[in-house]
Amino acid sequence: MEKEQIIELLNDFKNNKISTDEALKKLKCMPFEDLGFAKIDHHRVLRNGFPEVVLCRGKTTEQILKIFQSMEKTQNNVLLTRASEEVFEEVKKLNKDVKYNALAKTITLEKEKAERKGKVLVICAGTADIPVAEEAIVTLEIMGNEVKKVYDVGVAGLPRLLKHLDDIYNANCIIAIAGMDGACVPTVAGLASCPVIAVPTSVGYGASFEGLAPLLTMLNCCAPGVAVVNIDNGFGAGYFASTINNR
Amino acid sequence: MEKEQIIELLNDFKNNKISTDEALKKLKCMPFEDLGFAKIDHHRVLRNGFPEVVLCRGKTTEQILKIFQSMEKTQNNVLLTRASEEVFEEVKKLNKDVKYNALAKTITLEKEKAERKGKVLVICAGTADIPVAEEAIVTLEIMGNEVKKVYDVGVAGLPRLLKHLDDIYNANCIIAIAGMDGACVPTVAGLASCPVIAVPTSVGYGASFEGLAPLLTMLNCCAPGVAVVNIDNGFGAGYFASTINNR
Amino acid sequence: MEKEQIIELLNDFKNNKISTDEALKKLKCMPFEDLGFAKIDHHRVLRNGFPEVVLCRGKTTEQILKIFQSMEKTQNNVLLTRASEEVFEEVKKLNKDVKYNALAKTITLEKEKAERKGKVLVICAGTADIPVAEEAIVTLEIMGNEVKKVYDVGVAGLPRLLKHLDDIYNANCIIAIAGMDGACVPTVAGLASCPVIAVPTSVGYGASFEGLAPLLTMLNCCAPGVAVVNIDNGFGAGYFASTINNR
Amino acid sequence: MEKEQIIELLNDFKNNKISTDEALKKLKCMPFEDLGFAKIDHHRVLRNGFPEVVLCRGKTTEQILKIFQSMEKTQNNVLLTRASEEVFEEVKKLNKDVKYNALAKTITLEKEKAERKGKVLVICAGTADIPVAEEAIVTLEIMGNEVKKVYDVGVAGLPRLLKHLDDIYNANCIIAIAGMDGACVPTVAGLASCPVIAVPTSVGYGASFEGLAPLLTMLNCCAPGVAVVNIDNGFGAGYFASTINNR
Amino acid sequence: MEKEQIIELLNDFKNNKISTDEALKKLKCMPFEDLGFAKIDHHRVLRNGFPEVVLCRGKTTEQILKIFQSMEKTQNNVLLTRASEEVFEEVKKLNKDVKYNALAKTITLEKEKAERKGKVLVICAGTADIPVAEEAIVTLEIMGNEVKKVYDVGVAGLPRLLKHLDDIYNANCIIAIAGMDGACVPTVAGLASCPVIAVPTSVGYGASFEGLAPLLTMLNCCAPGVAVVNIDNGFGAGYFASTINNR
Amino acid sequence: MEKEQIIELLNDFKNNKISTDEALKKLKCMPFEDLGFAKIDHHRVLRNGFPEVVLCRGKTTEQILKIFQSMEKTQNNVLLTRASEEVFEEVKKLNKDVKYNALAKTITLEKEKAERKGKVLVICAGTADIPVAEEAIVTLEIMGNEVKKVYDVGVAGLPRLLKHLDDIYNANCIIAIAGMDGACVPTVAGLASCPVIAVPTSVGYGASFEGLAPLLTMLNCCAPGVAVVNIDNGFGAGYFASTINNR
Amino acid sequence: MEKEQIIELLNDFKNNKISTDEALKKLKCMPFEDLGFAKIDHHRVLRNGFPEVVLCRGKTTEQILKIFQSMEKTQNNVLLTRASEEVFEEVKKLNKDVKYNALAKTITLEKEKAERKGKVLVICAGTADIPVAEEAIVTLEIMGNEVKKVYDVGVAGLPRLLKHLDDIYNANCIIAIAGMDGACVPTVAGLASCPVIAVPTSVGYGASFEGLAPLLTMLNCCAPGVAVVNIDNGFGAGYFASTINNR
Amino acid sequence: MEKEQIIELLNDFKNNKISTDEALKKLKCMPFEDLGFAKIDHHRVLRNGFPEVVLCRGKTTEQILKIFQSMEKTQNNVLLTRASEEVFEEVKKLNKDVKYNALAKTITLEKEKAERKGKVLVICAGTADIPVAEEAIVTLEIMGNEVKKVYDVGVAGLPRLLKHLDDIYNANCIIAIAGMDGACVPTVAGLASCPVIAVPTSVGYGASFEGLAPLLTMLNCCAPGVAVVNIDNGFGAGYFASTINNR
Repeated sequence: MEKEQIIELLNDFKNNKISTDEALKKLKCMPFEDLGFAKIDHHRVLRNGFPEVVLCRGKTTEQILKIFQSMEKTQNNVLLTRASEEVFEEVKKLNKDVKYNALAKTITLEKEKAERKGKVLVICAGTADIPVAEEAIVTLEIMGNEVKKVYDVGVAGLPRLLKHLDDIYNANCIIAIAGMDGACVPTVAGLASCPVIAVPTSVGYGASFEGLAPLLTMLNCCAPGVAVVNIDNGFGAGYFASTINNR
Repeated sequence: MEKEQIIELLNDFKNNKISTDEALKKLKCMPFEDLGFAKIDHHRVLRNGFPEVVLCRGKTTEQILKIFQSMEKTQNNVLLTRASEEVFEEVKKLNKDVKYNALAKTITLEKEKAERKGKVLVICAGTADIPVAEEAIVTLEIMGNEVKKVYDVGVAGLPRLLKHLDDIYNANCIIAIAGMDGACVPTVAGLASCPVIAVPTSVGYGASFEGLAPLLTMLNCCAPGVAVVNIDNGFGAGYFASTINNR
Repeated sequence: MEKEQIIELLNDFKNNKISTDEALKKLKCMPFEDLGFAKIDHHRVLRNGFPEVVLCRGKTTEQILKIFQSMEKTQNNVLLTRASEEVFEEVKKLNKDVKYNALAKTITLEKEKAERKGKVLVICAGTADIPVAEEAIVTLEIMGNEVKKVYDVGVAGLPRLLKHLDDIYNANCIIAIAGMDGACVPTVAGLASCPVIAVPTSVGYGASFEGLAPLLTMLNCCAPGVAVVNIDNGFGAGYFASTINNR
Repeated sequence: MEKEQIIELLNDFKNNKISTDEALKKLKCMPFEDLGFAKIDHHRVLRNGFPEVVLCRGKTTEQILKIFQSMEKTQNNVLLTRASEEVFEEVKKLNKDVKYNALAKTITLEKEKAERKGKVLVICAGTADIPVAEEAIVTLEIMGNEVKKVYDVGVAGLPRLLKHLDDIYNANCIIAIAGMDGACVPTVAGLASCPVIAVPTSVGYGASFEGLAPLLTMLNCCAPGVAVVNIDNGFGAGYFASTINNR
Repeated sequence: MEKEQIIELLNDFKNNKISTDEALKKLKCMPFEDLGFAKIDHHRVLRNGFPEVVLCRGKTTEQILKIFQSMEKTQNNVLLTRASEEVFEEVKKLNKDVKYNALAKTITLEKEKAERKGKVLVICAGTADIPVAEEAIVTLEIMGNEVKKVYDVGVAGLPRLLKHLDDIYNANCIIAIAGMDGACVPTVAGLASCPVIAVPTSVGYGASFEGLAPLLTMLNCCAPGVAVVNIDNGFGAGYFASTINNR
Repeated sequence: MEKEQIIELLNDFKNNKISTDEALKKLKCMPFEDLGFAKIDHHRVLRNGFPEVVLCRGKTTEQILKIFQSMEKTQNNVLLTRASEEVFEEVKKLNKDVKYNALAKTITLEKEKAERKGKVLVICAGTADIPVAEEAIVTLEIMGNEVKKVYDVGVAGLPRLLKHLDDIYNANCIIAIAGMDGACVPTVAGLASCPVIAVPTSVGYGASFEGLAPLLTMLNCCAPGVAVVNIDNGFGAGYFASTINNR
Repeated sequence: MEKEQIIELLNDFKNNKISTDEALKKLKCMPFEDLGFAKIDHHRVLRNGFPEVVLCRGKTTEQILKIFQSMEKTQNNVLLTRASEEVFEEVKKLNKDVKYNALAKTITLEKEKAERKGKVLVICAGTADIPVAEEAIVTLEIMGNEVKKVYDVGVAGLPRLLKHLDDIYNANCIIAIAGMDGACVPTVAGLASCPVIAVPTSVGYGASFEGLAPLLTMLNCCAPGVAVVNIDNGFGAGYFASTINNR
Repeated sequence: MEKEQIIELLNDFKNNKISTDEALKKLKCMPFEDLGFAKIDHHRVLRNGFPEVVLCRGKTTEQILKIFQSMEKTQNNVLLTRASEEVFEEVKKLNKDVKYNALAKTITLEKEKAERKGKVLVICAGTADIPVAEEAIVTLEIMGNEVKKVYDVGVAGLPRLLKHLDDIYNANCIIAIAGMDGACVPTVAGLASCPVIAVPTSVGYGASFEGLAPLLTMLNCCAPGVAVVNIDNGFGAGYFASTINNR
């Protein structure tokens, strides 16, 4: 759509509707709102079907609140990730419709509930990986995807995983989440025929090196059909899965 | 389909067509061919729409030839990756229809040329990344995908990339390949609305640490909608993209 | 100027103004003040146009206060970096003209406000990188540079960056600051014609490995014209930029 | 047995059979043969049931031949690992009964063929891992263990592995060998009730980092009952398994 | 035993005792209890002689309590590792027979005290390694092994270790635990004739890199007969030793 | 100048000199020449005062020759780095005016010899670092800078460095090159008042880890006024220094 | 002296002063005191001229107190390192003659003040490195060495270091301590003719990676005559220097 | 002695024997010979008792020959390390008195054979470590030290090491060399009372990571009295030991 905007812009210019300076200014300046410390990309919803998402980590509460206010006034849904409960309490004062998922640490404002389409399977290997899975699920749901979740099915107990073969066969896309050995990913990928998005987690200790171990496992996955996102990046996996499922 | 096979197996057993021992044996033994040093998974084509792919690296020429013979006698296409020219010369003696892509280092035997569907865009940042791109393209084409390739469009020269905005907007899926700084991936992902599969390459020197630098760049991509495969893994990216594009 | 001092010293010695022992002592002992735990280099202002800067991290409050007192009695400006608010409160008791930048964590005492010359552009990719940017800006300003700052222009949203093309073309020197993928550096460097000083930050999580990811991105930058300082080293970037801009 | 030797030594001394000096000398000097550049530990067979094994890597051919000659004159079997074919040709000139396993790169001299006892299962994930598996098997066999080998059963094709469930249930001890994702280890360990010795291999490329990836996978194995040896260390795994199986 | 269950299942099906659907469902679903966030593997005791062990780290207290309740109702012993004292206080409210080892951070419920068989020697190099040793010992004891413990015998004081030569000669299996240089492992392995399980610990500072140094020492152990578990993994070492000792 | 080109383009469009389609096409397509496998950026000379430089490493000889031919036909100078002597022999067949620096491994075609301005000091710590220094010097000279070179002045022999104090005081910019400990960089930076560009080299062995050691030394330089380029990146340092010196 | 003890032991045995069992027992058991959790090596003073030193880190206060009591009853001096002030308060209750160095975090009990001999120079690069230097100095002094200390002489200000050339020429041994770039070590080593013991510190941030940067600098030191101890290991450096100085 | 030279210089100047310019020039220029690509430090023999040593690695044969010629004309001994046999053949043409140690890869020219004093013990753990040991021994001998060498005494066979207790007790200084686990260093250090210089070697494979494993072992050595040099740095260990032994 930038292309169409540029064409329209050029035509407006040709027809003398706008001046050279205005054209130049517009050409360089796609619509976003500048808060000084942040620039809110309101036109992302047009490009990608979903508004910009706010990673709260590393931002002050004051900054988060101002960004929320900028986003809230549009018609779009709002998603804030890695948000502490303290931040949620402050955001709630601005808009009491926001919801908090304490495991996922997400704040959501769903202006109009989207239809949940398709089917994305979210598998996680251990109980301690659940917060990452929940972040993926919140992301998937607010982006309009139907989710099936299956928890605690690491390969240490293969039957637990095999019980869910049907879910694996029926998914449009699978998000497989694991810390420690990360070995459920190659196993799931060997059984699945849809794309598998792998999420390493920092769950573990010692030689897991904060998630490096499952990250390497997943990058070296023998079974094809796997791609990997950053350690603990449930949001990224959910977003990526949504781009596949909503296709 | 394993599910259906198990049901059929159980029914055969119920109807006394096969004995307990036979059932047990079959149940555990999905159809593959055992060469001793390798087990050829002939039923993968049923599950995943494509036969098993052979990574030549680390196998002796003798092993590769035997695996090729096992695969060649089916109706399926054959793909061998990381194959040296010497291996190709030997394989050609077995079947003169095989083709070699010297850049990609792939051997292919395409029994019936599949219709090329959809559109996958393969972008690579530098000329030295082309061998990885070619491996992805050979994989994509033999799996029935239409490919558009755009080479040498690293962000060091942004206009070169922006020239291909239309290709970025029109793709079902993008494979973005880069060594060194890997920075074309976040830029492409910020422009695209389809899934972007990132492939770091070992192109570079010094602090690229054999591809670690672009791998980390891609895993930390600020723009959502990106997932990453192993360093230099053009095949993996092509296969993954095909599972999305053929959906 | 050490050269001139040595010549003068040798002449004083030749003319019997000072004894052999005195000459030897002076020769080895450029003017600095020894506090026992620290040696304050008061003549750096002569060499480099700016007095020694104090990194508070790793020093006790008592040590910082004594160093401050040693520096305060000269005519020079004073800059303390990585200073906590508690340290600031103590320093303020010694001299109430000091100022604190809570984001940058700097304490400054500007005895005579220098003219702000030239133009250094400070770009940072994300809101969470602002503290590093502020440290660079405080450093630049107290060293007499005019600064333009542009925040939150990561390549995930290319138009946000392109809006500032004029600033990029007009700068004498650019400081580009980014965590996570660090990808705004190659993009900016590809557009700029002046030197670009890259600062990786520890902003991010997982495979950013506390700033290793953007550090490697920047060191491997495909576009020429880039050099890199330590992770989170806003001061170092500001100081380096000043040596270029004040030339 | 050192204990008994010391007692005997002390008694000889008490009974004036040996002098103080002789006692002291003997006490410090357990029986080994000093070749200058190497010290052959001939009494290891008493302690551990198997003579010292020679790692050829890093030794000159001349050194290997002298060590071989020192060992050959005992009644014990001889095992040389990481031996090139060139070394084998030279050793063969000294004793034509030696055998060479070209995959394992081992030279063996089996003076009296030991009875093969118990059952050790050697599983390897991929064809390229076979050299490591063969090194383990040569070691196990010359140390008197019965071996069952199962090759190419990585989790990418789970049915291939499940076919060998009986072998897994019936083993006294399992050696599981894998490169790349190393994921067959947790899966096997979850199914087995005997100890599983995991061997990462340097098979793979890119983010396998010469075997680091499967090493970390195996160290972080979720299923208990797994311990790990060095990358590519087939000998070490075989030796360790033998100490369990021969118990 | 899965094998026997499958055979029985197939026979039930053949004899029309169960339907196709029931057979399929059962086949895929080995007996475990699904708590939603966790799946308790109650049949592990049949396979491995010991029920599933719960790693408390990364689980909420609420999750731990529910898992404990699920396990407590069986006849099996219960072991929870990495449990804080706070968790213990809560678990104790559910069942006052549980015991807490404050050094090991383990909670145990021993329903019937197993006979302690064989002899496993647990050696640790330094006083600071004792918590890891205690975790191994609690695991060994609840699994029915007799344990001998020897603490603070690092090679810096060789006589301290040599005093325990008898213990080394008499053990069925040795667990050797060390941080920093990890050097007691090769020394012990050179003296022992039984399997040695090495546990690196995160004890140390600087270039121990949280246990990486002793981990590498142990993986590179010159003496054969050593295998390694994860850093600080006392439980894993105890479990592995038990599979050897109970053989 | 892109700005000016865009304005001109918009005006041409407004005045109906070009159509919408043409405008759009031009807007996206800054002038470069597409060779398929590479895109030559002929307008870089306008932006940065120097044409694009070709890194030969990773390109085939055929590709290099085609790129050279594309560049040769302009009026600009040509610089090829990391070129083997074999490549040079082929390039020479195309244009006999090219010159080869065997230490630097550069091929240059200097159409009109630029005036050498300013003064850049190139210091290298050891004789083995000279190839990196030569790459920097070739780059500096073809870009119009006057260079002074000082070799083998590592801090192991401080007087060797101090002899060149005058050169340090008189430079506009210093490139300091070192492998192993990299310690000449902080020493030089402590003496200099101009910007110091540090180049770590892969010279060394063992714990230099292919240049990681001096890279870290330089990034952690205590003296301010230092920025770092990639390991062995003499070209990058020369280019960066030129942007400072030509200011 | 173990040698002499063994000779005496053997003679006692020969002369029937002790039995076989007693001899064996004594032979294996050099004099140390077993506290269960720790074994105090009281005869180290005979071997090495100094009693065992206690590293408090990782030990409980209760364990430290018991070890202190065991050591206190001998005639030897006592040194406890990495001791918190809380531990000191408890130790003081047992013996009010103990002294605490709050910077070094050492507790000392000096029963008879040794004569301070020779001259060891302790140099540290920055104020933040002083705690490590103090640990070295406390160790040196209680072991009977005369110490000269010189602080804050990093190479960023070379004159500060050169002022102390006499100290460098007059020392028997130098301990050089630095974090960040660690560059004062090669400079000092280039000037000195005595052995230089280098201590990297964890002082710094970002790419110092907790002391890895100066560790590598020091290991790669171009000037000969340098050896390195662990990061922050002031005690180790002091002890090593004492073995040289007391020679 | 620089001090004395400076005093003499100042007096010459005072007495008008030399001009200001000459004084300045001399002051900055300690006596070394400038070959352009290298600066030979002929006065090092005065400072450190031994002339500069030449590391051949990374230098061209032509450069080595010129450096040799510069050194040869003095009265000092000459030592070239890491020299290939080809280089030796060329050097021999210049001076037929040079000697080559093929294991150590050293070239020596010993003009007057120094008296061998004191006693340095060189211990190496394995046969493959001998080249590093030989480099240390050649260095020690040409610097006038008496050497005792003990090879192949790794802790895997403790009695082999204990046989040499007398050598350990009688040495002035010990060099302990090991690859793989590096564990002989802590063991030797626990037995010795003199300084122990540890040399990690790159001998090993897999998780030895080219010598990283023994390097970390040695840096973390529990026994005090150890300092470490770079991986494979036999020369550095020999030089350092000589500064201790010649004291």
